[in-house]
Amino acid sequence: MPDLVERQIYTPPPGFRRLYLRVAWDGRDFAGWQAQRHAPSVQDTLQAALGQLGGEQAFRAVAAGRTDAGVHAEDMPLHWDVPASFRLPVEKLARALNAHLPPSVAVLDARPAPPDFHARFSCTGRRYVYRLLVSPQRHPLHQGRALHVVTPLDAAAMNSAARLLVGTHDFAAFATQEDRQTVRELRRLEVHPGPLVWDIRVHGESFLRHMVRGLVGTLLLVGQGKLKPADVQGVLASRQRAQAGANVAPHGLYFAGAEYGLRQKADGPNQTIG
Amino acid sequence: MPDLVERQIYTPPPGFRRLYLRVAWDGRDFAGWQAQRHAPSVQDTLQAALGQLGGEQAFRAVAAGRTDAGVHAEDMPLHWDVPASFRLPVEKLARALNAHLPPSVAVLDARPAPPDFHARFSCTGRRYVYRLLVSPQRHPLHQGRALHVVTPLDAAAMNSAARLLVGTHDFAAFATQEDRQTVRELRRLEVHPGPLVWDIRVHGESFLRHMVRGLVGTLLLVGQGKLKPADVQGVLASRQRAQAGANVAPHGLYFAGAEYGLRQKADGPNQTIG
Repeated sequence: MPDLVERQIYTPPPGFRRLYLRVAWDGRDFAGWQAQRHAPSVQDTLQAALGQLGGEQAFRAVAAGRTDAGVHAEDMPLHWDVPASFRLPVEKLARALNAHLPPSVAVLDARPAPPDFHARFSCTGRRYVYRLLVSPQRHPLHQGRALHVVTPLDAAAMNSAARLLVGTHDFAAFATQEDRQTVRELRRLEVHPGPLVWDIRVHGESFLRHMVRGLVGTLLLVGQGKLKPADVQGVLASRQRAQAGANVAPHGLYFAGAEYGLRQKADGPNQTIG
Repeated sequence: MPDLVERQIYTPPPGFRRLYLRVAWDGRDFAGWQAQRHAPSVQDTLQAALGQLGGEQAFRAVAAGRTDAGVHAEDMPLHWDVPASFRLPVEKLARALNAHLPPSVAVLDARPAPPDFHARFSCTGRRYVYRLLVSPQRHPLHQGRALHVVTPLDAAAMNSAARLLVGTHDFAAFATQEDRQTVRELRRLEVHPGPLVWDIRVHGESFLRHMVRGLVGTLLLVGQGKLKPADVQGVLASRQRAQAGANVAPHGLYFAGAEYGLRQKADGPNQTIG
């Protein structure tokens, strides 16, 4: 019964209960989500705040996605296994943690997690937004929040290329240092031009390492006329990282949200949250 | 011929030429637009940058509106009288100034000003946006950029009240320390709710001191059920500052843009720019 074995791995260890939280952060202050020596991480910052509330014995929180240094999160779900002895009521936890967190991180919501909920493995959809400041000059209100692109961009060409990338493909050409299999379903890739700030919206179940930044870098080449829209089919087919555009800077990237809906797999439906 | 006398005041002094610029800033770093002793102003910061480019003899720039400490500007037009001897080509000025300005200020555009253009007196429309973060918890990506409102708000009630405030009225109840006449035309006042951030859009030819912040403070009372929409008519009629809501914090306020279109007045049309 592999199904049961899998479920055992997902549940919290004895003496712990699992919480579900939604967290946001400004990526400029962090070397990414993941705890690491000698660099500030969101995971460590949360852990320290919980420690100040008597939750020192908690496991490290598990996020829906692991983001790189400089990447922002508008709404990142996570689960957190806290000792059964941790007595702070969950409805007071968000506010209590926020009082101990720096301005660059906040907990948006906290509640008990449903049985077997796993922030990463139960996740059925992840949304990202990449922001471009398309303007001859920089803009102080978008400093560190959007990639500054000085040249005009052809939005129609970028969306033509984007439509060719949507679907289930081998995205090896858009990944860096990836040792998992490289076929993914890209459900949405759309360029939404604005008068100053453009949003590139991306949606899929999961993504390869640096895949979103590689996709955006490739769309930028199309927008600047350095690649034709149809060329992205050749990039995909090549499976070679050098064929795609460079990874764009992390400070334009936002983890925008995650879904925990029905998963169309043999192991049955997961919980729905939110 | 009072018309001609007025025009003389508006034109640059002999030996100077007038430039038109659009500037943006993050208000958190400044005690407002206006130069003052012992506090950093946007006007002084621009003046210092121009000085580094050889423009020490320039007059101080004149902005379409004078904003308070903490107020942001997405797009603020201004004129700037520079010595005829200042040789930097205007098409290179924005980039050159931006290289000498801190990240919190940037010049978006620079060009020669039309004859008789005055950034403040020629201005026929000013737009503001006030941003609310409507959420039980704070959000790091809106820190210092939106007023955090913890309680839910009734957007329909706020818009009902807003419609009663639009039009030409005596807005004395919404002004502080104002010695000009207090009748103004409020052309637009609209509450646009969002999932997290709400925009309140405001438009008029000109505004009294703190008027936008007083209007928003009053709409907040309506949104929280502390005033009924129709009550704002009594607030207007009272002409008493104590009847209106408190001025909301400056960090949610953005100067969003200004217009220089036709002015329907006896002194004839002004220039159109942009």
